[in-house]
Formats: sequence, structure tokens, C-alpha cells
Amino acid sequence: MALVILRPDGAMGPTYNFVSLFAKQRHTKQMEENVSEKLKYRKCLGTGVFLAGLAIAVPAMAEEPGVKNSFIELAYSVDTFYFLMSGALVMWMAAGFAMLEAGLVRSKNTVEILTKNIALYAVACVMYMLVGYNIMYGGGPNGFIPGLSFLLGLDNTAEAVLSSGGDIYYSSMADFFFQVVFVATAMSIVSGAVAERMKLWAFLIFAVVMTGFIYPVQGYWKWGGGFLDALGFLDFAGSGVVHLCGAAAAFAGVLLLGPRTGKYVDGKIKAIPGANLPLATLGTFILWLGWFGFNGGSELKISNIAEANAVSLVFVNTNAAAAGGLVASLILSQIWFGKADLTMVLNGALAGLVSITAEPLTPTPLMATIVGVVGGLIVVGAIILIDKMKIDDPVGAISVHGICGIWGLIAVAFTNPEGSLAAQLTGVVVIFGWVFCTSFVLWMVIKSVLGIRISEEEELEGADVTECGLAAYPEFTKE
Amino acid sequence: MALVILRPDGAMGPTYNFVSLFAKQRHTKQMEENVSEKLKYRKCLGTGVFLAGLAIAVPAMAEEPGVKNSFIELAYSVDTFYFLMSGALVMWMAAGFAMLEAGLVRSKNTVEILTKNIALYAVACVMYMLVGYNIMYGGGPNGFIPGLSFLLGLDNTAEAVLSSGGDIYYSSMADFFFQVVFVATAMSIVSGAVAERMKLWAFLIFAVVMTGFIYPVQGYWKWGGGFLDALGFLDFAGSGVVHLCGAAAAFAGVLLLGPRTGKYVDGKIKAIPGANLPLATLGTFILWLGWFGFNGGSELKISNIAEANAVSLVFVNTNAAAAGGLVASLILSQIWFGKADLTMVLNGALAGLVSITAEPLTPTPLMATIVGVVGGLIVVGAIILIDKMKIDDPVGAISVHGICGIWGLIAVAFTNPEGSLAAQLTGVVVIFGWVFCTSFVLWMVIKSVLGIRISEEEELEGADVTECGLAAYPEFTKE
Amino acid sequence: MALVILRPDGAMGPTYNFVSLFAKQRHTKQMEENVSEKLKYRKCLGTGVFLAGLAIAVPAMAEEPGVKNSFIELAYSVDTFYFLMSGALVMWMAAGFAMLEAGLVRSKNTVEILTKNIALYAVACVMYMLVGYNIMYGGGPNGFIPGLSFLLGLDNTAEAVLSSGGDIYYSSMADFFFQVVFVATAMSIVSGAVAERMKLWAFLIFAVVMTGFIYPVQGYWKWGGGFLDALGFLDFAGSGVVHLCGAAAAFAGVLLLGPRTGKYVDGKIKAIPGANLPLATLGTFILWLGWFGFNGGSELKISNIAEANAVSLVFVNTNAAAAGGLVASLILSQIWFGKADLTMVLNGALAGLVSITAEPLTPTPLMATIVGVVGGLIVVGAIILIDKMKIDDPVGAISVHGICGIWGLIAVAFTNPEGSLAAQLTGVVVIFGWVFCTSFVLWMVIKSVLGIRISEEEELEGADVTECGLAAYPEFTKE
Repeated sequence: MALVILRPDGAMGPTYNFVSLFAKQRHTKQMEENVSEKLKYRKCLGTGVFLAGLAIAVPAMAEEPGVKNSFIELAYSVDTFYFLMSGALVMWMAAGFAMLEAGLVRSKNTVEILTKNIALYAVACVMYMLVGYNIMYGGGPNGFIPGLSFLLGLDNTAEAVLSSGGDIYYSSMADFFFQVVFVATAMSIVSGAVAERMKLWAFLIFAVVMTGFIYPVQGYWKWGGGFLDALGFLDFAGSGVVHLCGAAAAFAGVLLLGPRTGKYVDGKIKAIPGANLPLATLGTFILWLGWFGFNGGSELKISNIAEANAVSLVFVNTNAAAAGGLVASLILSQIWFGKADLTMVLNGALAGLVSITAEPLTPTPLMATIVGVVGGLIVVGAIILIDKMKIDDPVGAISVHGICGIWGLIAVAFTNPEGSLAAQLTGVVVIFGWVFCTSFVLWMVIKSVLGIRISEEEELEGADVTECGLAAYPEFTKE
Repeated sequence: MALVILRPDGAMGPTYNFVSLFAKQRHTKQMEENVSEKLKYRKCLGTGVFLAGLAIAVPAMAEEPGVKNSFIELAYSVDTFYFLMSGALVMWMAAGFAMLEAGLVRSKNTVEILTKNIALYAVACVMYMLVGYNIMYGGGPNGFIPGLSFLLGLDNTAEAVLSSGGDIYYSSMADFFFQVVFVATAMSIVSGAVAERMKLWAFLIFAVVMTGFIYPVQGYWKWGGGFLDALGFLDFAGSGVVHLCGAAAAFAGVLLLGPRTGKYVDGKIKAIPGANLPLATLGTFILWLGWFGFNGGSELKISNIAEANAVSLVFVNTNAAAAGGLVASLILSQIWFGKADLTMVLNGALAGLVSITAEPLTPTPLMATIVGVVGGLIVVGAIILIDKMKIDDPVGAISVHGICGIWGLIAVAFTNPEGSLAAQLTGVVVIFGWVFCTSFVLWMVIKSVLGIRISEEEELEGADVTECGLAAYPEFTKE
Repeated sequence: MALVILRPDGAMGPTYNFVSLFAKQRHTKQMEENVSEKLKYRKCLGTGVFLAGLAIAVPAMAEEPGVKNSFIELAYSVDTFYFLMSGALVMWMAAGFAMLEAGLVRSKNTVEILTKNIALYAVACVMYMLVGYNIMYGGGPNGFIPGLSFLLGLDNTAEAVLSSGGDIYYSSMADFFFQVVFVATAMSIVSGAVAERMKLWAFLIFAVVMTGFIYPVQGYWKWGGGFLDALGFLDFAGSGVVHLCGAAAAFAGVLLLGPRTGKYVDGKIKAIPGANLPLATLGTFILWLGWFGFNGGSELKISNIAEANAVSLVFVNTNAAAAGGLVASLILSQIWFGKADLTMVLNGALAGLVSITAEPLTPTPLMATIVGVVGGLIVVGAIILIDKMKIDDPVGAISVHGICGIWGLIAVAFTNPEGSLAAQLTGVVVIFGWVFCTSFVLWMVIKSVLGIRISEEEELEGADVTECGLAAYPEFTKE
């Protein structure tokens, strides 16, 4: 359990005086070898979790089952409540992506991007319930090919929880709720990159397969206990599993779609400003807030001193990295462009958040700030570079979630003593490779059957009227 | 306690091994016959609650009062905290209604609808504190006529809580906070339906009586332990008590007001598009988030395994129904109108939420999705039908909260084995009848004294300037 | 512990039957005399807190260390969780200020105010981590000059927590998170008052010093246990330390900046309407929601009956005061101006919130409503008066946070039996004096080195293009 000992909170030092805790540690050390490191961060339904060993120190209670059981009941409720609140915050990120993207596109494509965003959330909820969750956490024969179980049946019985001695420590339904909002996050990343030119229904069909199959398979490889987890790839809350995943799917779509009409003309890059920057700023604030649930909830437990300290540190580090990313991109924008470009500033904050997501627990707050600063610098360069390569990403999603997701995964090798650069790079290659290739094939299939791009006339008129029959701001726009 | 046994979480199976729990169950079975089923869902101040029997299993502690009391203290704090967070989420729904309605009206009436929405929240808080809460939970002689107590005095003393053995298990002030945000929700429904033509002060006077008297009386009949509760009418979080109530009051107002000028001309229906659809989408996301508090908090307890599982299931089902409603309305819109109409999509999500509110605990997530799907289909048809009947409801509030509220109440008879179709229909008739009739009379009185409709000139100019002296977007609008 | 006995919840009456609690009380009575009243409201890192005496009543457990320790662990997690949720809500207030201010300025200065608001939050997070927190809670030799410690190292070890018997009862990192969002709130107040004419980088440099030094020093005087605290000045959640502080800094800036061009011409006051009132309304709703964390979290503890009741009462009173302020300003606007001026209504709600912040625990809900009503009346008069004095405050920040902050501090003398008018007035003078004078000097220095005001041409063109190179709504604005 070296990881815990290395935490800056110091809570798990050798003077920790509960006898049974060490017993538990040995037990979980055993478990760790057996069922892999995933159990640190992501729970398999009905499986004991190694952190549960820390749940409640109950050495003197072995002979008092009534007291011990009462503790288990109450701790179970606290951890479940913490899960539900974290999940609600992550659900709120769906609104953040919707506002961010709606603010950064032109008014004539605003209703359509709103429709995509709220609809993809609903599609993710349905598909992940029916298929995705059962693939991701259904186990599998060899760590590569996932199994498929129906996991959304009965919740843990009180009897099972109590007889597990607290190893089962929160509601399976709360776990599902927390997981389902993550898959929606991954899918939200895609909508921004393909904005202003992709057909609504092509996008939604992609969302069905992405949330039901593509995301869950690579999720299984890491958080479901598959081979990526077994080889030591670390990804606390999903710089890879969620953000790089979303960006890889987006990248495949963008390559097939091509740029928006008028974006690159005669070798020149035309800036296409977003229609509503207060909305984009609101979206960023919403994402920042929601990220406390995203990262904070990924500790998966809060009901004892060590875990409460860990969750607190994750909150502080998440906030620090966002602040660092914002300040860095602000200063770099001012130096580079001579202006404090708000869109860069917003992307800087998001870059900091993505960067710290792979490991918000082992750095000190100062180190977390630096991880964010690097992310904030990277994102500005990446957005400029990707634009120069004539890859048209209207909201900068590939830079923020893809490039900074990779940076976040690599940073783990430097901030977490258990991290290995080789394992992290393997994870990057595997996740990107899987998601990019399957997405590319899927986009191709959709393209050949249905088409993925609206016509040039529709693009000029705007997707709102042609796809949704409505204008976003019927009274405001000029002409 | 058949209800609990039938929960999909299975937590209350017969193998549950705490002796005293069964004792409690018998006791509460007794209580149930005496004080009716309300106690399952809504607490009367200072009254023991039947679920409290599940609070903390403390069989072996009877002889250790110190340990038992410490559990009661800590569980009390967890349940109170859960209440406060739920209440904060429901309060946030007031912002959701304000944004939804402000996005769906024309820009010239936007300041006025914002003023109505934020003011009605404040009016509801004041009136419910002074009168409404005391009527709703003040008991009464016969289940029809409510009593009136002043309930907002001292909170539970520690002594009372401890000597109750945990039957009193959360702060009365937290209960008030949770309840007061519900009455505001009911009132928020009205503002949308009467938008763009009702006088501001007529509306606010209506709000005074609605939140102080009309809502609390029918609330007493169900959640305060009155006759609707006694006859087996089930309404977990208020498809009837809150949503149908708000819609019935709105319907009465709309009938008296008549349609907006220019809405129905020469037998033709003119669509009047909303001015700001990102705002409407934001409002829907806010409502979706807030609904986790609305339904999740209505379980009223989280501090043990069975309750934590129940709250988690409510979260999952609430989310699933919204997703189902959205997908259904999206597909139906595409088929029916050939376009993915965003306003229908938003109303579909809200329809799903309203539909599951009467019973989010007994269905499985798949069943909850289906309840939402039906709601999403109903709402599209209802909006079209009501418009064809020349009943002008600018935001679709009567369809979403009224028609889907009725659907939600009826669905209980199919998803909850304790539900009875007769009782549910009785509840629909009683709530609609009471609220519609009293509201109609009240609107009539206000109309005769003050007038309820702005003049045609004011309507053309817009209520913003005439009622509030301000424009919502002074720099944006054309002309 | 008279304060607690005087609470309306009555939870701490003399019949409270835990022997050791009284022992604790005596102990803390002693502590109180030694380390001053601050400990009631603001925790010094690693210092026992007097309220901790109430933490968990554990009289019968002295001989059972396992059981006692398990309670301490679980209560620690509950209090930490409550802190983190409160902090997240206060962080959300940064979005509220951003939206409020972006809605109340003209469209040509919107990007710039958004940039200021999100950037100041990041600056506050960095500076408070590096310097401010360590000044504010680092102790000091005499109560006037703060010390400087590095407080953000290791979190509390489980050993230290357990051996403290629960006196250390929540994560230091959670404490930092909660505190850092407060300093951002204070700084957010400034941006609104100096809007539409101050240079972006002058503002951000000010933010560096304000959040790293000016705010923390006066914070030390009260919440860090300095001389203001010692002389009995009461400020529960910061009507003075946060709101008056922000307003005083803003006032100094506004005096040096002068009014916006065209605001006061030929002795006439020209109204300059805000560009987006739905945004301003959303901002107010966000602030209202966030304030539950701001005031509710400032109780600092929730893990027993008395504390849970106290937090609940704070929620109810915070809500009641906002409602009272809103209703009062609405009615006064209608009477005075003949219109329901939405900007006054929004400021009325905020005025109620600021007014109750100094003491949301001792009033009854009715009394809290009245405190808010007075705040709501004051703010309307103050805004008109300050405008007549040709002090140009585009959003009314000085009136809302300064004048109502003072009212809130004075009101403590009437609502809290422990409050003294002399001490409250001393606090007002000291906080205003310190912040105004240091801010004035700092603004002067920045002015002489860099300039603080954009040129008149830039002002006419709008700060968005000149400072940020972007338009907020490029497709909407006329001309």
C-alpha cells in the first residue's frame, strides 16, 4: 500500500495504531496481486475494495457485532451520499459542455449544438444502462475481451454489506449513477469538435455506439480491471479513459468531416468567433464546479480520516491546477497575441483540469498548480498548431481533452512514485489507438449509409433551421 | 411494510437479522394504521416517522446508552445534511424555471418574467413561513380541514431526539427549508403559462394566496396526513401535490386571461418563438439537476443501508426517466415534424421528470425509463392538442406539469404494488378540483379588483418597459 | 457558552444529560478566555476548537477507545464532507458574480469583465495558497501584526485526530478550500464597481496584492484570532471581513478612477442599462444558492444534533433574509419609481444576503426576514444616493456589499445578545479603514506606474476589443 503511505496527508504513517488495519493491509496486498490495481479507484460491483480496508477502524469491536454493524450502516450511508453528490456535480458538467459549446459556435448553429448536447446525455444514460455498464464492469476472461453481465439488478442487501464487514461500502445504484455521468462527459467532448457541420442524427447514432461499446471497452481495460490496469497504467479520474477517449473519437470525426466552409480559404486561416462568450464562460465555470465531483468522487470513499483527507486534497489540487492553467494561458496569450484572449483563458482553465485528472491525489497543491500551468501553456500552443494544420476544431476540444489528457497521463510518472512512464505511454497508445480506430470505422460506416456532413447550403443557412426548425436567438441576429 | 420489501434493492428481505427491527416494524405497522401512510414520505414536525424504525439498527446497544446516543447524534447530522443539500438543489430549480421561461418568451417580456420568477420565490418563502407550513403540517380535526400551529419555533432538542431513540431524526428547520422550496416550485409552474400578458402585481397577489393557502391545504390532505393520504393515494415527491397543483392554478389563469394577442388569428395558430434558446436549455439542465434533490430528498432519510440504497435508486430512476422522456420526444418530433424541435426535446426531459416524481422508488431503472418515455410521448401530443384548442400556454407548462403529472400519478398504480388506480384517480380529481376552483375564484377576484391582463398597447410594447421600466437586451433587439 | 444556550434551537438547554459535555464546556470556557472568541467561527489550523467540545457526546466511551475512535473517524469524514460541499457552493459564487456583472455592463465591455472575474478567481487561488492563507491563520505576536507560517503541508494525521479526542475534527485541506473561495468572493466585489473603465492588468495586479495581503491581514484580525476578535467584534460569515472588505477596496478604486465617460454630463445622471438582464438574474440566483455554502459552511461543524440544528437554522435564515430583502426592494421600487425595477429587485435579494451574513444563527427566521427587509430598503436608497453623489458604481456593489455589510454588522448588536454595538462599530471602522487606505495607496501606485484607466477612445470602442481582442456577442449588437 505504498501509494497511501506516500500521500502528502501523511495519514497512513507507520504509527497508525490499529492492529486490524495492518491485517487488512496484508489481506488487500494479497487482493491487489490477484485482482489488480483497479480496485484502488474503481469498484466492481459486489467486489470488496482494497480501500475498504481503511473504511472504519474497528479493532475493538469484533466481539460487539451490534456496534460494528451500526458503524458499517452509517459509513455506508455517508459514502453513498458522497457518491450521489459527486455524481450530481458530474451530471452538471453536461450543462457546462452545452453552454461552452453553444457560446463558441455561431448563432445559426446554436440550437443544433444544444440539441446534440442534451440529447447525447440522454442517449448515454440509456445505452450505458442497457449495455455499457455491463461491459465495463462485467469482468472478462483475459483482461482484453470484456464479459457482459446484467449489473443493474438488486442493490447490495444489508445482510451482504454487514457480513462483508464493510468491504462492500456503498450502493451499487449510486455507483452506476456516478459512472453513467462519466460516459456522458466523454461523449460531450465530441460534440464540440464536430460542431457547425455534422448532421444531428449521424452524431446521435455515433453516440449510441460510443457510449454503449467504444467507451466501455477501454473503460474495462483500466477501471474494470483489464490489462491496462494490470500493467500499472494509472488514471485516477480519467485524463485517458474519459478525456483522451472523447478527444480521439472527436479527432477521427473531424478528419473525416473536414473543416467548416470558409474556415481555410486560399491558405489563410479565418477566425470564426463564437456568438455568445458569457455563455462560454458560464460553461467553463460549470465545468470547474462539476470537476470537484469528477475528481473528488473518484477517490470513491470518504468515511474515515485518511479518505476524508484524500478527498479534500483532491478538491484543493483540482482547483489549484485549474487556477494554474488559467493564469498560464492568460499570461501566454497576452505575451503572444498582445491581448488577453478570453477563449484561451477558458481553455487554459479546462486544460489545467484535464491535466490534473490523471493524478490529483499524490501532488502537493503547489505541484498541482504547476501541472496545471504546463497544461495551460500546452493548450494555447496546441490550439494554434492544430489550427495551422488545418484541422478545424471550433471549440479546441482536441487540444484541451486530447493533448492535455496525454500530458496529464505523462505527468503521473513524475508526480506519483508508483507511476511508470512506460505504462503511462502504453495507456495513451492503447486508448488513443482503440478509440480512434473504432471511431474512424464507425464514422465511415455512418458516412456511407447516412452521410455525416450537412450540405454546403445547409451550412450557410445554419444547422438550426435545417436540422431543428428553430433559431436560437430569432430576435437578435442581424441581417 | 410490504412497500419496503418490494423495493428492487432487496435490502429488507426476511433474512435481515436485527431482532429489534422487527419489533419496530410491528410497532410502525400499528402506527401506520393509526396515522396513515403519509409518514412514509412526509414528516410531521415532532412526530415519529415509520421509516425511523429503520434508522439505525441498534439491538445490542440498549444497555449502552452512550454508544446508542452517539449513533443517534451522528445519524441525525447525516440526515439533516442530506436534507439541506436536497433543499439547496430544489431551491436551484427556481433558477431553472426562471431561465427556461425567460428563454421561451419574446425579448420584450423577458425582464417581466424574470421579475415574476425571482419575486415569486421570495413571496413563497415569506408566505410559507408565516402561514403555509403551519397549515400544511399543523394537523387537523378530520383530515379535511387543516389546523394551524406555529411550527417554526424551537428545533428538536437533543434531549427529545435522544429520548425518542432516533424516531426524531433530523432538524425541523431543515425540514422547513426542504418544504419551502417545494411550494416555490409549484408557483414557478404558473408563471410560464400566463407569460407575456398577465400583470405583474396580479400575479404576485395570486402567489401570496397560492403559497400561503391553496397549495398548503391540498398538501395537508396528502403529506400532512389528511384524507387523501388515508385513502391510499400515493405521491412520492409531488407529481400531484406540486406539479398538477401548479398546472391547475395555471390552467385557471390561462382560461381567464385568454391567449396572447396575435397567437390565434383567423383560425390560424401562429408560432411565437422564444427569444433565447440557450437560456431555455440551461433552465432545463438546472431543473434536471435540481430534481435529484426534489425526488432524492423526498425519501427523507439516508442514514442506513436500506435508505441509502433507496435514495440511490431514486437518483438513478429520476435520471433514467428524464433520459427516456427526452429520447422519446426527440424521435417523435423528428417523425412527426421532420425536425428535431429543441423545445419539444426540453419539454420531453421535463415530462419524464414529472412522470417519475409520483413514484421513483419502486420501478427498476428500465421501468423508470419507460415511464419517462410515455411521458415524453404524451407531452408532445398534449402541447399540440392544447394549442389546437386555442389554449395559449407559451412554455407548455400545463402539458408538462399537468398532463404528465396525471400520467405520473396513474403510473403508480402499475409500478408500485401498493398503488390503487382508484385512489390515484381520486387524488387527481381532488387536487385538480381544489386547486382549479380556488384559483379560478381567486383570479376572478383579482381580475375584478385590479385586472389581470395588461392592455393591448402594453402587450405590443412589451411588459418589460411598461411593468419594469427596463429592457432585457437593450442592445440586441432589432428595429 | 451563553451563545449556544441562546440559540433558538434550544438544543443546549441545561437538561442536556452528558456528564462529559459539561466537563468539555468548562474546558472550552477556559479555552475561550485564552484564545478568544474566534474559535467559535474560524478554525486555526491544528488548534482545538471550542465547538469541538460539542462534537460527539462520548461520556460512556472513555473506556472503549475502539468505539470512540470509530466515532471520531466517521464524524471527521462527515464534517469534512460538509466543508467540501460548502466550499464548492461558495466557489460557484464566482460564477454568480461573473454572470451578474456581465449582465449589468454594456455588451462592449462584457468579455473584459468576464476575463477579470474568472482570472481573479484563479489569482486568488494562487496567491492565497502561496501567501494569504499563511498570513491569515499563521498566528502572530500581538494580534495586530500577523505571523507567517506555511500551513499547507501535511494534513492532520489520524493519530493526531484521534489523540485530540475529536478536537481536531476536519481536514486542513478542506479548511483551505473553504477559505480560499472566500477570498475570491471579496475580490469579485471589486470587479463590478470598477467595470467598464479600468485596465485589465491594473485590476489583476491589484488582485494579487488584495488576495495575498490586504484581505488576509484584516482576516487575521478577526478570524485568525487577532485584536478585533479579542475585543468582541462578531462577524459570523463575513459581512465585514468579506463584503465590507471588498466594497472598501472597490470604493477606493472608484474614487481614483472616476465615472464612466458619459455617465454624468452637465449635472445630469445618465442611466447606462446593462446588456443582458437574464444573465444578471442568473448571477443572482447563483449567488443565492452559493450563499448557503457561504453562511451554512461558516458554522464549521455539522456532526451532532446541536450543530446540525445550527446549520439548518443558518440555511433558513439566509434564505429568509434574501426573500425579505427582495420583497422590500420590490415594493419600494414600485412605490418610488412606479416600476418593478429588476436590477433593484436583484440587489435587494443580495442586500438581504449580505445583511444576514454577520449573524445568521441567533435570529429567528422572522427576525432574519426583517434584517433582510431593512437591507433591501437600504440598498435602494444607497444606490440612488451614491449615484447622486456622482460615484459611479455600475453594478451597485458598494451599496450592496459595503452599506449593507455595515448594516449587517450593526444588526448583530440587536440580534445576538453577545453582540456589542461598540465592538461592531470598531470592526466597521477598522476593516474599512485598513482596506480603504491600503487599497487607495495600492491603486495610486498602480496608477502611477501602469495607469488604471483605459483611454477615452478605448472606452468608447469598448474594453472587449482593446483589452481582449474579442467581442462578447459579435452577431447581436446593432450598428
